[in-house]
Amino acid sequence: MSSFGSAYRISTFGESHCKAVGVIVDGVPPGLPISEDDIQVQLSRRRPGQSDLTTPRDEKDKVTILSGVEKGYTLGTPLAMTVANQDQRPHDYGEMDFYPRPSHADWTYLQKYGVKASSGGGRASARETIGRVAAAGVAEKFLRLTHGVEVVAFVASIGNVSMEPMAAYPCEEGQDEEKQEAKWLAKWHEWWRVLKTVTRGDVDKNEVRCPDDKVAGRMRERIVKARDAHDSIGGTVVCAIRNVPAGLGEPCFDKLEAKLAHAMMSIPATKGFEIGSGYAGTDIPGHVHNDPFVLREGGRLGTVTNFSGGVQGGISNGEDIYFKVAFKPAATIGQAQATATYEGEAGMLAAKGRHDPSVLPRAVPIVEAMASLVIMDALLQQLGRQGARALLPEDSNIPGVLTGKPPRGGQTEAEVVTTIVTQADGPHKVETVRP
Amino acid sequence: MSSFGSAYRISTFGESHCKAVGVIVDGVPPGLPISEDDIQVQLSRRRPGQSDLTTPRDEKDKVTILSGVEKGYTLGTPLAMTVANQDQRPHDYGEMDFYPRPSHADWTYLQKYGVKASSGGGRASARETIGRVAAAGVAEKFLRLTHGVEVVAFVASIGNVSMEPMAAYPCEEGQDEEKQEAKWLAKWHEWWRVLKTVTRGDVDKNEVRCPDDKVAGRMRERIVKARDAHDSIGGTVVCAIRNVPAGLGEPCFDKLEAKLAHAMMSIPATKGFEIGSGYAGTDIPGHVHNDPFVLREGGRLGTVTNFSGGVQGGISNGEDIYFKVAFKPAATIGQAQATATYEGEAGMLAAKGRHDPSVLPRAVPIVEAMASLVIMDALLQQLGRQGARALLPEDSNIPGVLTGKPPRGGQTEAEVVTTIVTQADGPHKVETVRP
Amino acid sequence: MSSFGSAYRISTFGESHCKAVGVIVDGVPPGLPISEDDIQVQLSRRRPGQSDLTTPRDEKDKVTILSGVEKGYTLGTPLAMTVANQDQRPHDYGEMDFYPRPSHADWTYLQKYGVKASSGGGRASARETIGRVAAAGVAEKFLRLTHGVEVVAFVASIGNVSMEPMAAYPCEEGQDEEKQEAKWLAKWHEWWRVLKTVTRGDVDKNEVRCPDDKVAGRMRERIVKARDAHDSIGGTVVCAIRNVPAGLGEPCFDKLEAKLAHAMMSIPATKGFEIGSGYAGTDIPGHVHNDPFVLREGGRLGTVTNFSGGVQGGISNGEDIYFKVAFKPAATIGQAQATATYEGEAGMLAAKGRHDPSVLPRAVPIVEAMASLVIMDALLQQLGRQGARALLPEDSNIPGVLTGKPPRGGQTEAEVVTTIVTQADGPHKVETVRP
Amino acid sequence: MSSFGSAYRISTFGESHCKAVGVIVDGVPPGLPISEDDIQVQLSRRRPGQSDLTTPRDEKDKVTILSGVEKGYTLGTPLAMTVANQDQRPHDYGEMDFYPRPSHADWTYLQKYGVKASSGGGRASARETIGRVAAAGVAEKFLRLTHGVEVVAFVASIGNVSMEPMAAYPCEEGQDEEKQEAKWLAKWHEWWRVLKTVTRGDVDKNEVRCPDDKVAGRMRERIVKARDAHDSIGGTVVCAIRNVPAGLGEPCFDKLEAKLAHAMMSIPATKGFEIGSGYAGTDIPGHVHNDPFVLREGGRLGTVTNFSGGVQGGISNGEDIYFKVAFKPAATIGQAQATATYEGEAGMLAAKGRHDPSVLPRAVPIVEAMASLVIMDALLQQLGRQGARALLPEDSNIPGVLTGKPPRGGQTEAEVVTTIVTQADGPHKVETVRP
Repeated sequence: MSSFGSAYRISTFGESHCKAVGVIVDGVPPGLPISEDDIQVQLSRRRPGQSDLTTPRDEKDKVTILSGVEKGYTLGTPLAMTVANQDQRPHDYGEMDFYPRPSHADWTYLQKYGVKASSGGGRASARETIGRVAAAGVAEKFLRLTHGVEVVAFVASIGNVSMEPMAAYPCEEGQDEEKQEAKWLAKWHEWWRVLKTVTRGDVDKNEVRCPDDKVAGRMRERIVKARDAHDSIGGTVVCAIRNVPAGLGEPCFDKLEAKLAHAMMSIPATKGFEIGSGYAGTDIPGHVHNDPFVLREGGRLGTVTNFSGGVQGGISNGEDIYFKVAFKPAATIGQAQATATYEGEAGMLAAKGRHDPSVLPRAVPIVEAMASLVIMDALLQQLGRQGARALLPEDSNIPGVLTGKPPRGGQTEAEVVTTIVTQADGPHKVETVRP
Repeated sequence: MSSFGSAYRISTFGESHCKAVGVIVDGVPPGLPISEDDIQVQLSRRRPGQSDLTTPRDEKDKVTILSGVEKGYTLGTPLAMTVANQDQRPHDYGEMDFYPRPSHADWTYLQKYGVKASSGGGRASARETIGRVAAAGVAEKFLRLTHGVEVVAFVASIGNVSMEPMAAYPCEEGQDEEKQEAKWLAKWHEWWRVLKTVTRGDVDKNEVRCPDDKVAGRMRERIVKARDAHDSIGGTVVCAIRNVPAGLGEPCFDKLEAKLAHAMMSIPATKGFEIGSGYAGTDIPGHVHNDPFVLREGGRLGTVTNFSGGVQGGISNGEDIYFKVAFKPAATIGQAQATATYEGEAGMLAAKGRHDPSVLPRAVPIVEAMASLVIMDALLQQLGRQGARALLPEDSNIPGVLTGKPPRGGQTEAEVVTTIVTQADGPHKVETVRP
Repeated sequence: MSSFGSAYRISTFGESHCKAVGVIVDGVPPGLPISEDDIQVQLSRRRPGQSDLTTPRDEKDKVTILSGVEKGYTLGTPLAMTVANQDQRPHDYGEMDFYPRPSHADWTYLQKYGVKASSGGGRASARETIGRVAAAGVAEKFLRLTHGVEVVAFVASIGNVSMEPMAAYPCEEGQDEEKQEAKWLAKWHEWWRVLKTVTRGDVDKNEVRCPDDKVAGRMRERIVKARDAHDSIGGTVVCAIRNVPAGLGEPCFDKLEAKLAHAMMSIPATKGFEIGSGYAGTDIPGHVHNDPFVLREGGRLGTVTNFSGGVQGGISNGEDIYFKVAFKPAATIGQAQATATYEGEAGMLAAKGRHDPSVLPRAVPIVEAMASLVIMDALLQQLGRQGARALLPEDSNIPGVLTGKPPRGGQTEAEVVTTIVTQADGPHKVETVRP
Repeated sequence: MSSFGSAYRISTFGESHCKAVGVIVDGVPPGLPISEDDIQVQLSRRRPGQSDLTTPRDEKDKVTILSGVEKGYTLGTPLAMTVANQDQRPHDYGEMDFYPRPSHADWTYLQKYGVKASSGGGRASARETIGRVAAAGVAEKFLRLTHGVEVVAFVASIGNVSMEPMAAYPCEEGQDEEKQEAKWLAKWHEWWRVLKTVTRGDVDKNEVRCPDDKVAGRMRERIVKARDAHDSIGGTVVCAIRNVPAGLGEPCFDKLEAKLAHAMMSIPATKGFEIGSGYAGTDIPGHVHNDPFVLREGGRLGTVTNFSGGVQGGISNGEDIYFKVAFKPAATIGQAQATATYEGEAGMLAAKGRHDPSVLPRAVPIVEAMASLVIMDALLQQLGRQGARALLPEDSNIPGVLTGKPPRGGQTEAEVVTTIVTQADGPHKVETVRP
């Protein structure tokens, strides 16, 4: 259905050629200061026509709040928001309409609904994401005000041009094995530093939305090459979420990574999702992949490394959450393609008009939006549980647990172990002997 | 929460040390022949102690159907199924309990619930998946009986030992560019042939559950190496779903790939999900990545290639669905690890007992189970829509659409195009000139 | 939350003084012919200012369909519909705002949300029901086209002026006991005839919306009396739903009567719900209250009486569904009331402006709307189940059941019984002796 | 479906003749002390065979907690609870099975599912309520511990034997009009006193579960009369819920009274629901029906009267909640009934065995259970909202509202008004002149 979330629940509507697209948001906390300007910021980042890399259609995409806000504050009732469509008429049918666009949603929508909208794929349009971004604007404001949550996404690769250090674990056995591993680990720490510090300002420095300017230049070339060939090219978006409190995510099915995966894979053109070490983690041995605990300033536990990506057992652990999303090349291309009509007759299809050679730069605020929606929903659910728990008598707990230090004389089995320690010059392996 | 699905909805319960684990399944179609034996098959594949590669705990895991079935047929009412736990007592606390296990759920569960179960991670236990597998047994039976749906998963990699051909798109420009591309494409067609034909019998030929015996041998070595080092290693599971009718998946948020991603990422220890071309698809150009339509026997449209993985615009297109799931190395290892207690005191933790050096072989039936649950849920939702649509007068459709062949004299813009054609000896690029 | 239904799901939004009120409808079957005119009919019946009995505010309440419809047919995607508010500015605060209106939602909304909308009760406004009525217009069209479903509600009482025959069961014991009972039963059959035949045309003959003109006249007097005293008066609405197929309603919690009760009690100002015999049924003995089965034309079973109100075990049985809803007197009255401010200071409150002395006439289309929404949702759910069941092999059923006639020589225990038989001149009791 | 609630969600299972009936409860707050004994209390009150007025089947109904509890405290994970069935075999089919029982669920279940369970109505069995009562035991414990919530239901009428004072509003005009009204109002205050003080101990003093012993004696006679005639008789249950905090209930569709109505009408054999003044409220004029606010001890607002039944605008106001539920006579009776077989053949049906002549006494704990489930769910939802609101800066509110006392010189329009005042000797009307 067209709804997402449970405690913070959004319901979107709208096709490309109807009067408007929009969203209803239910579960908005009351008393939150919010304005259309707050919402517009990310909508404008999502809008087409921002650069010569994206489709030049100039959609204004001005949002209107219809309900749920009074004198600048939320009432706790549903917020409805709409963005008018510029082209509100179904288009005239032409020859192109006899062909389902390859790898687009034309044919599957017809299979599903048995009717065919003039826009072909109906809701499978990038315009559908407007409602998501608007709804996330409210969530983001709340998360920022109450927890200082920061959600920053950026383009990490276009085609095979990549800024990523997710190198394979060094598996060659030999004399400098340990050195290789330390080097490899240092690259991860470097990556975590990027994730910890990158800002939306850094991301918007260039039109590709890659914070590494040098890589961005090569990405731009790759997109221009696709554009000039009336072709398209995919890539990946990485997203970091910072200052998420520990304890979010609902076992067993609504684990935080499961909801994030659901959210990201519901964005048009996505083909993959990975969190933390992701696919690279499949060949890192357990003793390296495990994130050891350490006491942080302020007295809470943190982890030395963050292969987990901020989530353990489906629940946030307070570390930075980061994940990567794969986007395929856009299905609509100007090049002629040999394919078949709905009736099965072979023929050629060439899309008219101008199309995004790469959806990646505009996907950045959409990924951020879906991330905010997931965190917001998980937070509200956890607040309900915490509220309930806080009402119980203080001694309401399972006896004999967590009473403090280990009993006198406690001994572990291991005598010598290797620890990963992060120092100024990078990570080191340290051997420790227990007395 | 502990429920998954809407039209076919499962609710699971149970920790490692309570009386039983199990599931309630709501939305089961009435009149389906089902027995405990039907359910047991996959539960036994999931069970520990099947080989020297998995944990030797001998859990019997015999399922009991408590309700919803009479004389061998479902009543349409909820099926409750339970599996008794062998060890029903919370364990005595030892020194290990002062340490949250690194990358396990001990610490995050405590953050979430404020209480600590003796099993540490509470529901973040592999035993929790028993209810899923049991519920999927019923779904699988229905899908097989009514549509001949086949769900087959297998281990595609262990560490860096991989059977996969998902090679990067050949991007070197030069004289044999086209030849490189054809070779690369041929590998994909070979892969699609594997996905189209592999059976559970093939998969169970060896204890690793990799259908390629040669690769399986090397995988086995990798797992044994981890086991002997009291370490662990991750890997990937690939799953193919065949004979899924077109039209399944609910836009916009419950796209089929979004639900599959959600389902897979809710399995313990998963770090990534990709469908169709996945991450490899991010550097395949659009004109190659698009799957052209072709008329199939029986008169319905199919696609020449299947980079989409059987899903377009979030809706199944009738082609094989395939996806890959990344599993991290198991968090619980026998090696001693430098970490901290709940109180933040640095120390060493070494897990006692024997643990799975790799969860991959046992993950296979769990991946299959979650896939079946997603397809079943989407099918029931679509059946409701189709039933409603079928009640409307036949002419209830948008006028002027899909009336047949292109109008006389219709011409596309392109005159010369390149087509991908699959012949006996593999895929070819063919240039076509339109008259 | 502001959503209702599962397979046919509506989400409403809007307060009295925001830009618009409206609704998103998800789950609309594709290919349904629908126009704004179809929707407007019931909205106009709901609108204030229709007679001198209702509030003279002239709200135009013109509906706009924003999405989900193309060229007059539904696409299967969400329909968004809005109605602009005439007065879009929060009002200026006056002394009245220091008093929570007694029996209104001002105080409870403040307790719930901690913020106070200028409209006091926020969403607890009659305007909120606009979205419901619009969403039901689509459902009604579908139900009518596919099953000939008719939903007709009417005002059955205003204050103590009532058209109802729901007399108490005659319990005086004595010589003419049986005659009394037959007379009493005849009244019920008369009532069922009304419910079987009343049309919206009959209901709209007068401004009170009571199909019995004579009673309507007295009702009008009662309302006028309240109006002239700056007071208000409640009453009851009865609703009949005809041609509902058997099998709707989802055990155990979403029984059809439970969903109808939920729906009706979610309408502002409702205080009670009863279905079939309702409260009157609590003193009818079981042997009279049970509805005996009888073979109907067309070969399906029907019932001789209909104390059940068309629902048995939570599932529709194909007979007419009827129920009654109690509405309290409107809380906002012009008379001065002794009450207290938010701060607890005693004082007097007199509402300014003109207010509905009775909500009953305008409640009629709202009751019909909620009834249509419940039936539509239950129908779509059942269509999914039937679709699934139809895919199973024909012999998929529990063995030994429903194989035909009773075995030879079968005998019941009873020898003499009393039967209720409906003849031209009314119901009769008939004694039968079994051979 | 077989689930109820959102934040506190129960899923029940089980038919009469399967292995067990039971429930999974999701959303249980962690750290709640709970034992099987806590749960058993209400299950035993629900159990058949408690007196000669109820069916003498001796079902033990011992509950087992399978999961979610450790060492006497909840873990925050799902609680599964089961009660074994004594008779786990589907019965042999006899002649009775050819007849759908009139007003029972046999026929409608067959229409819905297309299969016929040996128990006829499948889940439409009183045994299905066991899961509800068990789940409510946990909710009740939480509500009592944290808010001192008391839920007390009792039998208010059997047939036409009633303890209720819900007299019609005195409408005869004449000289002693005011006196009549005061007398009538005094009866309501008396009723409210009963509702405020009645305990489960009072209710269990007699086997009918009516706290008024004198009326209970006459009720008993009425039930015995039905029993001896192999007949059945209905009645009403009234339920009071005390100490519910203000602010519970979710506009617009999940108003507290709507959820209560839904919950009650999902109990087998219910035909009606009313809250507060209910149907009697339909002829009380608005100026009497409105509940004036008054400052209570402790500084919060209360209401002088309670026609609202503790709920305004769908949200609890902190006053006692009370409602009444109508139960029809049990459908299964020993008397022979003229009816038809599934095939439509006319014949006689007489139920064998012993059956409850009145379900009312056993319905009392079921009504209490459903009430607790609704309050618990609403409370957890509100705790989430309050938690979110509490995180916002203190000044997050709509400007210019609720700033304190009325502005100097503020005057209402009314000069003389009548107030209802409750004194030791009952309610009085007082005229007040504003300076």
